[in-house]
Amino acid sequence: MSTGPAGPVVSGGPLAIIAGAGDFPPQLADLAAGSGRRVFVAALEGAADPAAFGALDLQSYRLGQLGRLLEELRRREITDLVMIGSLPRPSFAALRPEASTLKYLPHFARAFRGGDDHLLRGVVEFFEGQGFSVHGPAEIAPRITAPAGPLGRKAASAAQREIIAEGFRLLAALSPFDVGQAAILADHRVIAIEAAEGTDAMIRRVGELVASGRLRIAKGDGVLVKAPKDEQDLRVDMPAIGPDTLRNVAAAGLSGIGLRAGRVLIGDAVGLGQLADKSGLFVEGVAP
Amino acid sequence: MSTGPAGPVVSGGPLAIIAGAGDFPPQLADLAAGSGRRVFVAALEGAADPAAFGALDLQSYRLGQLGRLLEELRRREITDLVMIGSLPRPSFAALRPEASTLKYLPHFARAFRGGDDHLLRGVVEFFEGQGFSVHGPAEIAPRITAPAGPLGRKAASAAQREIIAEGFRLLAALSPFDVGQAAILADHRVIAIEAAEGTDAMIRRVGELVASGRLRIAKGDGVLVKAPKDEQDLRVDMPAIGPDTLRNVAAAGLSGIGLRAGRVLIGDAVGLGQLADKSGLFVEGVAP
Repeated sequence: MSTGPAGPVVSGGPLAIIAGAGDFPPQLADLAAGSGRRVFVAALEGAADPAAFGALDLQSYRLGQLGRLLEELRRREITDLVMIGSLPRPSFAALRPEASTLKYLPHFARAFRGGDDHLLRGVVEFFEGQGFSVHGPAEIAPRITAPAGPLGRKAASAAQREIIAEGFRLLAALSPFDVGQAAILADHRVIAIEAAEGTDAMIRRVGELVASGRLRIAKGDGVLVKAPKDEQDLRVDMPAIGPDTLRNVAAAGLSGIGLRAGRVLIGDAVGLGQLADKSGLFVEGVAP
Repeated sequence: MSTGPAGPVVSGGPLAIIAGAGDFPPQLADLAAGSGRRVFVAALEGAADPAAFGALDLQSYRLGQLGRLLEELRRREITDLVMIGSLPRPSFAALRPEASTLKYLPHFARAFRGGDDHLLRGVVEFFEGQGFSVHGPAEIAPRITAPAGPLGRKAASAAQREIIAEGFRLLAALSPFDVGQAAILADHRVIAIEAAEGTDAMIRRVGELVASGRLRIAKGDGVLVKAPKDEQDLRVDMPAIGPDTLRNVAAAGLSGIGLRAGRVLIGDAVGLGQLADKSGLFVEGVAP
């Protein structure tokens, strides 16, 4: 997947991309390399697809090969890191650490005891403790996040922008409870709020309520809103949408998507804009 | 269904119970009659089951027979009303008003234009405008709502009471958005928040997440919390639980239910307490 000519990218020395699953890692790698930055991809086995990174310099690592990865980064004099892509929460037992990784285990044993946020923070703290700088994808390539304004031809109406604003207020009110990256509103009513089920399951739920006749949503009404929590660490845990999100939103009979500009990963902006047009949806980035 | 000896009931003159579907209308009628109050049941056709009210004085009415109901209430010199039970939102066309009801139509045409809350407020205002006093079920028979403390033998632990308190804080934060009568929390994480899907669908969703392995809830952990919104009119729109709620909560692998005491309808407290014991659940009323 290509994202066209590279947008503004933080310039700097060589960059390591620790890559999980999905389209975002190769998209970010393309944008960073396209800006002239030397890129080294550390593809996590069982998650990242090495073939998606084309001719980029790449090596694959198991999680238990952390010691080997650190040695490679030091040999290459790389100090800037970015972590991107999804990774199923590993079991501690499945790490199968190599000898060079054993000494780091106590740190991760502690990190494993908390929730996902805690684990991610533990990974960031580990790399920082080893002298690396951990960057967010948006610092490396702002274009990988939602821009302000409409992504396709269709823009949100004044009424739809008001629904989006109400949705952002709702998500902000939920932030202290460490929940609520997404919600669906219609006709000034809150239709669905995401918690453990995830965004796609929430959208499908609304589609099923509409299909069964238990819920009516007027044309041009229902809107998905998505934004990070107030305290979310955008370096390692940024909300995201993709083609499937747009397909689900269209299938559920909603009219569009409102996103916090610069704070939600979208990956291929051109492709998503075209899909929005084809689906008759607006996808609107709203500056904080 | 019996609720045992009647508890404290607001004493007073004759009372009309405008009864919709479900167990709550006959339970309230039993409690009110058991207190020595003269009860007249106006059973709404297609919703209330006349046979459930035993030997109580009862007449059935279509919604379009409002004029006839008003005449009957005046003939009986009844000025105290309570509305209870569920009613599918009627279509305005399906009202089929009788001649004596036609003059009231403009009021309801206005009320129909808003959401459910607006319609209910319109109905209350209509009866008040006609000189009636509209009471909440809790005023008529406090025992029809959740008492403070455990309903069965099992009480919430200190940790579970903290989860319930966090859940009430979450629901309060959602109140300004006119959403959130229920949520499920576990391990200090918010697992699910109810919006348009309703409480039972939300509980089933959590059960499916657990069954599919996408979510783990430790034994003694997951808790359903339920409370009214801050501005909710408890005279006509009180949250409720029943036997199905307990069955769903048990099937989803949750440990119990936290309710706002006095502000959630439970109906048959004895029966629910027995079902809680049988299911190994706590059902705890928490005073505001």
